[in-house]
Amino acid sequence: MKHKELIHEMKKRVFTANLALPEAGLVKLTWGNVSEVNREAGVIVIKPSGVSYKTMEINDMVVTDLDGEVLEPGLKPSSDLATHVELYKAFEEVNSVVHTHSKNAVMWAQAGREIPAYGTTHADTFYGVVPCTRQLTSEEVASAYELETGKVIIETFREKEIDPLAVPGVLVYGHGPFTWGETTKKAVENSIVLDEIAEMASTTEIVNETISPIPQYLLDKHFFRKHGSNAYYGQV
Amino acid sequence: MKHKELIHEMKKRVFTANLALPEAGLVKLTWGNVSEVNREAGVIVIKPSGVSYKTMEINDMVVTDLDGEVLEPGLKPSSDLATHVELYKAFEEVNSVVHTHSKNAVMWAQAGREIPAYGTTHADTFYGVVPCTRQLTSEEVASAYELETGKVIIETFREKEIDPLAVPGVLVYGHGPFTWGETTKKAVENSIVLDEIAEMASTTEIVNETISPIPQYLLDKHFFRKHGSNAYYGQV
Amino acid sequence: MKHKELIHEMKKRVFTANLALPEAGLVKLTWGNVSEVNREAGVIVIKPSGVSYKTMEINDMVVTDLDGEVLEPGLKPSSDLATHVELYKAFEEVNSVVHTHSKNAVMWAQAGREIPAYGTTHADTFYGVVPCTRQLTSEEVASAYELETGKVIIETFREKEIDPLAVPGVLVYGHGPFTWGETTKKAVENSIVLDEIAEMASTTEIVNETISPIPQYLLDKHFFRKHGSNAYYGQV
Amino acid sequence: MKHKELIHEMKKRVFTANLALPEAGLVKLTWGNVSEVNREAGVIVIKPSGVSYKTMEINDMVVTDLDGEVLEPGLKPSSDLATHVELYKAFEEVNSVVHTHSKNAVMWAQAGREIPAYGTTHADTFYGVVPCTRQLTSEEVASAYELETGKVIIETFREKEIDPLAVPGVLVYGHGPFTWGETTKKAVENSIVLDEIAEMASTTEIVNETISPIPQYLLDKHFFRKHGSNAYYGQV
Repeated sequence: MKHKELIHEMKKRVFTANLALPEAGLVKLTWGNVSEVNREAGVIVIKPSGVSYKTMEINDMVVTDLDGEVLEPGLKPSSDLATHVELYKAFEEVNSVVHTHSKNAVMWAQAGREIPAYGTTHADTFYGVVPCTRQLTSEEVASAYELETGKVIIETFREKEIDPLAVPGVLVYGHGPFTWGETTKKAVENSIVLDEIAEMASTTEIVNETISPIPQYLLDKHFFRKHGSNAYYGQV
Repeated sequence: MKHKELIHEMKKRVFTANLALPEAGLVKLTWGNVSEVNREAGVIVIKPSGVSYKTMEINDMVVTDLDGEVLEPGLKPSSDLATHVELYKAFEEVNSVVHTHSKNAVMWAQAGREIPAYGTTHADTFYGVVPCTRQLTSEEVASAYELETGKVIIETFREKEIDPLAVPGVLVYGHGPFTWGETTKKAVENSIVLDEIAEMASTTEIVNETISPIPQYLLDKHFFRKHGSNAYYGQV
Repeated sequence: MKHKELIHEMKKRVFTANLALPEAGLVKLTWGNVSEVNREAGVIVIKPSGVSYKTMEINDMVVTDLDGEVLEPGLKPSSDLATHVELYKAFEEVNSVVHTHSKNAVMWAQAGREIPAYGTTHADTFYGVVPCTRQLTSEEVASAYELETGKVIIETFREKEIDPLAVPGVLVYGHGPFTWGETTKKAVENSIVLDEIAEMASTTEIVNETISPIPQYLLDKHFFRKHGSNAYYGQV
Repeated sequence: MKHKELIHEMKKRVFTANLALPEAGLVKLTWGNVSEVNREAGVIVIKPSGVSYKTMEINDMVVTDLDGEVLEPGLKPSSDLATHVELYKAFEEVNSVVHTHSKNAVMWAQAGREIPAYGTTHADTFYGVVPCTRQLTSEEVASAYELETGKVIIETFREKEIDPLAVPGVLVYGHGPFTWGETTKKAVENSIVLDEIAEMASTTEIVNETISPIPQYLLDKHFFRKHGSNAYYGQV
């Protein structure tokens, strides 16, 4: 595919994925953004900053290089771009990143807690707890806030030795969720699932205050029903 | 009716019943599945695995025999098929099974608690507590997970001596709800009711921490207003 | 107006009011019913029992006399008719009754608690607590359940000396809400408000465990802004 | 622009902003009202009292002077007009005021608690806690209730030394939220955000009972990303 066509296809996918967020009830006003990277072509495509979902068009999507430098004249990219860039640099198999303020995931991020794997709905998508980062320091926030947000996510996954494709999402302390995936479609689905399991988890704890996470063998079973070489869910 | 027509009618009902799940807000993404059995004709019709509700067509429904062996070339059946098969073998009056991850029912399943009959909304459909199975063992999960899921449901109803038509649904520990009925329509309705009473029950316990279930005589009254030879609800 | 036209107008209003319940999210499946009485004409019009809102037509509405005896051949009336009849006999200014299983009101009914007046949203419509009846006895349920449901509502208002137009709704213990009004439109609106304040009240208690109801002078102010000879809300 | 055109443009904006409230799920029945002021032209335009959103038309909007005296024959203004007038007199940079009974904000108002800044969703719009007024006294309610509601809001902001554009909303004790902004669009958006953060805050406290508000440096960062001369969110 020629470079121009490739960019256009990326813009279409990123546009569609961004619109999927308010449709799924994950985003109000102009909150939330989706990007896609193509490392070989050296480009990232991301939602423009603060533009209404109702009036946004495909060509409003912003094209940058792999460091987040804008390559075309036009709208400004999402203010969270630096976080996306950082994640693409660290998570090599990730081709799309999604950020929302979806309310149930935000509630856990604000509570500063990782989400325990309380059931198979969780295990189908997230292979273990969805981690919550530490609080950013005053210096990190002051210096390069969005970049440091990316760094603290990567730090969280490295320290806890979590594979970002096995747990394709995170809560940023006091802020909200980021999810990702090999495609924009998958990254958006992961945001949908994350919000759903966040809601399920908080009420699960109300209904049974002493509940434990599901056992490892059930977590294994459900995750590997859908992922890896022995997966047997779906049509492939 | 000829066999071919009968299959087509089953496919239509199963297709319609599957679409009713996202319409009722019980299902996100491709979660959830409905099947119907015809024991005389020796067939089960079930949703295909992991297919989008938006693009799914009537003829995508999968036809199997009563052991779950696929009878027609085409899509793979729902990965939960073995659970449906097991339920049809044990519950002879049940002609349709529904599985969802509807969020309120999942919350109780994750909490590992049966749902007490706190009111007449519950009693109109479920004659007593909606039971929660025990946790599956590591061996059961490893050997034949979906079949064992069916078995633990049946075990729960046998041990607690519950009539599956009097309590047409169950929570699988750490997983989510299954409901059933004499028709696909009824089985889907039971999923709707189960999610509703699950939500009502968790807040009932918040509003009054010491509340008791309704007395047996009120449970009897409401259930038998709608079920059995003395029913007087509805038009028949 | 001739009797026949009057009946037709009543049917239209009752039909419209019944459809307003699922539109407002207060009713699932076939739960819920609205009726209207015309005491001079000696008739009650009510929803038929167990009929789907999607297929229901104006002429499916059932006409009875003031004792609930069906006057026209056709569908069976709502199984809750006897409750409506009883309320019309006792509450002379009430011309329409609504019953739903709207989830937030049911949660309080199941919890067996009256809803305190925690704010002006409550006070605008309900002049004081929304009472909850006592539990019906085994004998009452066995003998004439729906009629006794009406009686226990009336008993509640008499014992607590509540004017049914000042507090146009009630929770039946373990069951759910009934509301009423001078018109079908008002009775339906009261069901909408009752469910809303029920939801607000349960979370209010979570956000502040020691909160008190609003003072009497604020209750007076808001209720009488909208009701009585000194009302100044709205266009009349 | 001529005076007549100016009024017509104001009516259009106020009409549109009022309709945005039920669309955003913030308003049921006829609750809620939006107004806009033009101090130079000496006019306020506000929703009429108790008129249905479904039948309301642009020319139903009511025009008053800066003291709330109606300038054109027609419908009666919102009964909350005096509160709006009072806020316009005190908050000189505010050109639009919104009042709703949106349920999550009402829950906090009924609980009598200010909303802590638990996350960046809050900080993006509200620079610190959203305050809750004191309870109005019996005398204040009896004398000039709606005017006193305005006064107690202003008192709250003066005593706590809060800039009304930095925290563009408030909870009135036992009643509900008012928000405002430099435009009707902004004032409505602030109502949307206020309800969302109210919901997030109550569950945040459930998920972590000992959670603290976000640190001041994060509050600063998020608020000033979107506000003031160093803002870099959006396209300007």
